[in-house]
Amino acid sequence: MRWKCICAYDGTDFEGWQRQPHGNTVQNCLEKALSEIFSNPILTHGSGRTDAGVHAKGQCFHFDADWPHGSKKLIHALHARLPGSIQIQSVRTTGSHFHARFSVKRKRYRYRFLMGRAAPEDDRYVWARPDIPLDLELMTQAANYLIGTHDFTAYSARPSKDDDPNPVKTLYKLYLQQRGKQLTLVVEGSGFLYKMVRSIAGALYAVGRNRLTPEDMEEMLRSGQRTHRITTAPARGLWLDRVFYR
Amino acid sequence: MRWKCICAYDGTDFEGWQRQPHGNTVQNCLEKALSEIFSNPILTHGSGRTDAGVHAKGQCFHFDADWPHGSKKLIHALHARLPGSIQIQSVRTTGSHFHARFSVKRKRYRYRFLMGRAAPEDDRYVWARPDIPLDLELMTQAANYLIGTHDFTAYSARPSKDDDPNPVKTLYKLYLQQRGKQLTLVVEGSGFLYKMVRSIAGALYAVGRNRLTPEDMEEMLRSGQRTHRITTAPARGLWLDRVFYR
Repeated sequence: MRWKCICAYDGTDFEGWQRQPHGNTVQNCLEKALSEIFSNPILTHGSGRTDAGVHAKGQCFHFDADWPHGSKKLIHALHARLPGSIQIQSVRTTGSHFHARFSVKRKRYRYRFLMGRAAPEDDRYVWARPDIPLDLELMTQAANYLIGTHDFTAYSARPSKDDDPNPVKTLYKLYLQQRGKQLTLVVEGSGFLYKMVRSIAGALYAVGRNRLTPEDMEEMLRSGQRTHRITTAPARGLWLDRVFYR
Repeated sequence: MRWKCICAYDGTDFEGWQRQPHGNTVQNCLEKALSEIFSNPILTHGSGRTDAGVHAKGQCFHFDADWPHGSKKLIHALHARLPGSIQIQSVRTTGSHFHARFSVKRKRYRYRFLMGRAAPEDDRYVWARPDIPLDLELMTQAANYLIGTHDFTAYSARPSKDDDPNPVKTLYKLYLQQRGKQLTLVVEGSGFLYKMVRSIAGALYAVGRNRLTPEDMEEMLRSGQRTHRITTAPARGLWLDRVFYR
């Protein structure tokens, strides 16, 4: 019996998603809870890693176990064993052809900037920046250069923790949403290299502040070389929003 | 030169508002930042304490110091030295007759309940309860018994940390707001005893779950005795919303 699960988490106090022998990771918490519930070691498979401090609204994982009591009771049993920083959004049975990582079609991330001091309850979830207007037109122009299929090595960090060596990815969507002092970068793609969203977010912010031009961003993309001119935006503003499957 | 300041904070990681010799308190943080800015020890006076884990949207404090650079630069200097869990909402000069504690006319608190599992980013700010409908009509009836001027000893904890020995307080407002799965208790009064809002919140919740009757709550009020039948609601759901001055 294969279970497909969607979960949300506040990544602030976790050492990322990925299982570690002695770390406080999201996957460790989930596997500990599941192994307790099933009185048997349960391994989970996530859609991919998230780094320390990165949050999720819709991370997906699967695991195999027999559970005859229905999804509502499974969620209840999990919530009774998980910290408040992890919430199970849904669980449902799925066929054995489904794999949380290998069946991924697209992923959507959001990166939240805040222009000014964050309210204390938002501070963990945004990148608070000085209250200076950004040039959104230039940022949008730069974002449009990145949409499509490219080698994104220039917008990634090495060494990659992922074992996917293919640096060519497709970005389907990359746009900005503004609401008051909050600016959100939405990015949807076939896959993402290590720190790719945060590198794009950092570079676009530099464009908004006139420290890079849209043409700089295009040139860097073509060069295939990561340069020190791109600052990786901090983890706190990054949210894994949704994973889409075939 | 007396400054009246409004601040917000996430109380989760603080040992409350009140200055302590070696504690991580909100007042310690503020006084450390101010003393740095003025290169001189600065003492602040708050409107009153909040307990460990209690949050504030509009805590008020004052301090005396000469600052010729305007309020905007003062806020900026403070934010540069304060953790993200504290936000200065406003600062303005005021007359020396103003005292953040002794000039208080009313205070308003909110207590947030959530019926169900909280989203990870809300978990620190609500009291998450099982997703069972509450009897709001009974809760409202019980709340109405408490409005007015009463000895609130039954709805407080001892020993009080405050040096205000008068247990007679006036509640001007006490009502519930429901929005989806979130229920907020709003309470406005002349003053509050130690753990008074959390005791009222805990008792009203018990009424909503049919574990106490509105009449029980009235009787307890009249008795002037705290009983074990009242559970103090946890700090995480409590917000000091606003302080009103004469």
